[in-house]
Amino acid sequence: MVAVTIGDPAGIGCEIVLKALAEFDSADFAVYADARVVEKTMRLPGVPQFPIRRIRASDVGESGCCNVVDIPNLPDFEFSRIDARCGRSAYEYFARAVGDAMKGLVSCVCTAPVHKVALRAAGLDAAGHTEMLSQLTGAEDPLTMFQVDGLRIFFLSRHVSLVKACRMVTRERLLDYIPRCIAAMEQLGLEGELAVAGLNPHCGDNGLFGSEERVIEEAVSACRSRGLPVCGPVSADSVFWQCLKGRYAAVLSLYHDQGHIAAKTYDFDRTISLTLGCPVLRLSVDHGTAFDIAGRGIADETGMAEVFAKALSWTRRRS
Amino acid sequence: MVAVTIGDPAGIGCEIVLKALAEFDSADFAVYADARVVEKTMRLPGVPQFPIRRIRASDVGESGCCNVVDIPNLPDFEFSRIDARCGRSAYEYFARAVGDAMKGLVSCVCTAPVHKVALRAAGLDAAGHTEMLSQLTGAEDPLTMFQVDGLRIFFLSRHVSLVKACRMVTRERLLDYIPRCIAAMEQLGLEGELAVAGLNPHCGDNGLFGSEERVIEEAVSACRSRGLPVCGPVSADSVFWQCLKGRYAAVLSLYHDQGHIAAKTYDFDRTISLTLGCPVLRLSVDHGTAFDIAGRGIADETGMAEVFAKALSWTRRRS
Repeated sequence: MVAVTIGDPAGIGCEIVLKALAEFDSADFAVYADARVVEKTMRLPGVPQFPIRRIRASDVGESGCCNVVDIPNLPDFEFSRIDARCGRSAYEYFARAVGDAMKGLVSCVCTAPVHKVALRAAGLDAAGHTEMLSQLTGAEDPLTMFQVDGLRIFFLSRHVSLVKACRMVTRERLLDYIPRCIAAMEQLGLEGELAVAGLNPHCGDNGLFGSEERVIEEAVSACRSRGLPVCGPVSADSVFWQCLKGRYAAVLSLYHDQGHIAAKTYDFDRTISLTLGCPVLRLSVDHGTAFDIAGRGIADETGMAEVFAKALSWTRRRS
Repeated sequence: MVAVTIGDPAGIGCEIVLKALAEFDSADFAVYADARVVEKTMRLPGVPQFPIRRIRASDVGESGCCNVVDIPNLPDFEFSRIDARCGRSAYEYFARAVGDAMKGLVSCVCTAPVHKVALRAAGLDAAGHTEMLSQLTGAEDPLTMFQVDGLRIFFLSRHVSLVKACRMVTRERLLDYIPRCIAAMEQLGLEGELAVAGLNPHCGDNGLFGSEERVIEEAVSACRSRGLPVCGPVSADSVFWQCLKGRYAAVLSLYHDQGHIAAKTYDFDRTISLTLGCPVLRLSVDHGTAFDIAGRGIADETGMAEVFAKALSWTRRRS
């Protein structure tokens, strides 16, 4: 089975999980949550209703049910409200799912969004799933990969200013990231090359505007000489399109927005996020808890359905 | 009529013009070229053949023909070869078309790609169409706008290194560009707001990573207080998607790749470029002369057909 955590109970997480579940055979998914949260969410208008069946991760799932690994830690809550108890609950759902994945009881973990302020209110020092996953599995620096259709994107840096991200394009960092990205591609069973994006317009046009591309060339060349399937730098205004067309298996983007703009302008709703380089594969939607619309039954489950589809194909390929 | 220049004769320009012409009523388009170049290109495999009809810009075009404003300056040439005579010819086609547009004989100018090395070999100091247009019309700093579907993108800077582009995000520059972008939007008859993109991930998350967004906020606020329809900064990973969904009329991107990645990952082939803020509207494909495939009849006219469609709708709206 695939583990699914509902994220912060006060957000749209449980709602989109239930809506997406209706599009699949629910026997394949174990929902990690307080069953009372699931029940309360099912009472929202427009949210599908399933019989709740309490299971353990080692059980076989049943079709037509919501198979819940019940973690009874939240007697009540209000939608759209930041609440330390919700933050704590969200953490416990995730911790249990990751633990079951480490034991091999579930194939991977799909996550709905958590709220970082609620996590902090609960006394947790992790800003989000990636940090929690790192703490729970001991993996030092997990890799994030975005995917939408054939476009797969890694990130050389993420939440730093653009000026700082430019300074982080160093030979050392590239020599660290390129092999790890390629190992992650192997984890996913991908064939083909990793293309490293350029930093400057037209890759600097032979040094006319910017010289970081020489550093990238050197790092790529060093990796290639060790037999790694990597190429670049490839001009950032065409590399993502070419990846979509199948020319590359994945792209290493050099800063947060380079990859985010590509994936999300191409298809915001269907862009999903994978956390790789860990003992546990985590798949996630790329939006937040959406407290502004939580509890109204109007959240869109497109992203979560993409996550479920990807999790199933990964699970089937592995077994 | 709409003026169309074939660009560098040795490139794919004339080929894609003829192929795109076959998808429209050719009576609406005046092709600026040496008629012998058109004839030679028509003999390539896969290129549609039309009777060539020599016209002046003041004539009425005829359907089923290639209406050519003949500029006999190139007795012969070879495809895929950089040639000063081709560079000079391309310039003369464009100069004539711009002159006719300035006189009001044609509504706007669609251009196929020129080759900057051929232009330089011909002794011209312009790097491309934008600079030539600036010289020919006296417009000091024309604006480039990309368009694909409802996504329209201006650029605060273009061919500079990314680090330098970050430094160019200043209050002064924004206060110069925002009103000019809005004037250009009015030139196109657009209604709705211009959204200024953010520079840092998530607009710097309240100063957590990068502070340029405060400068943008101030500039936007100053423009709004003068009644200009502008908003932002809007996080770059969602602003382009939101523009596609109709929330904004256009986006001011802060660096070359920010806008290029958005448009070209969304749809590389159909992204077109407009030069605005000039007495003459110029529309263009966004690819180059493609000497690697010129003269073989295999070039894709999708972009040029988009350019023609846009030029026609602009012409009809104005008349």
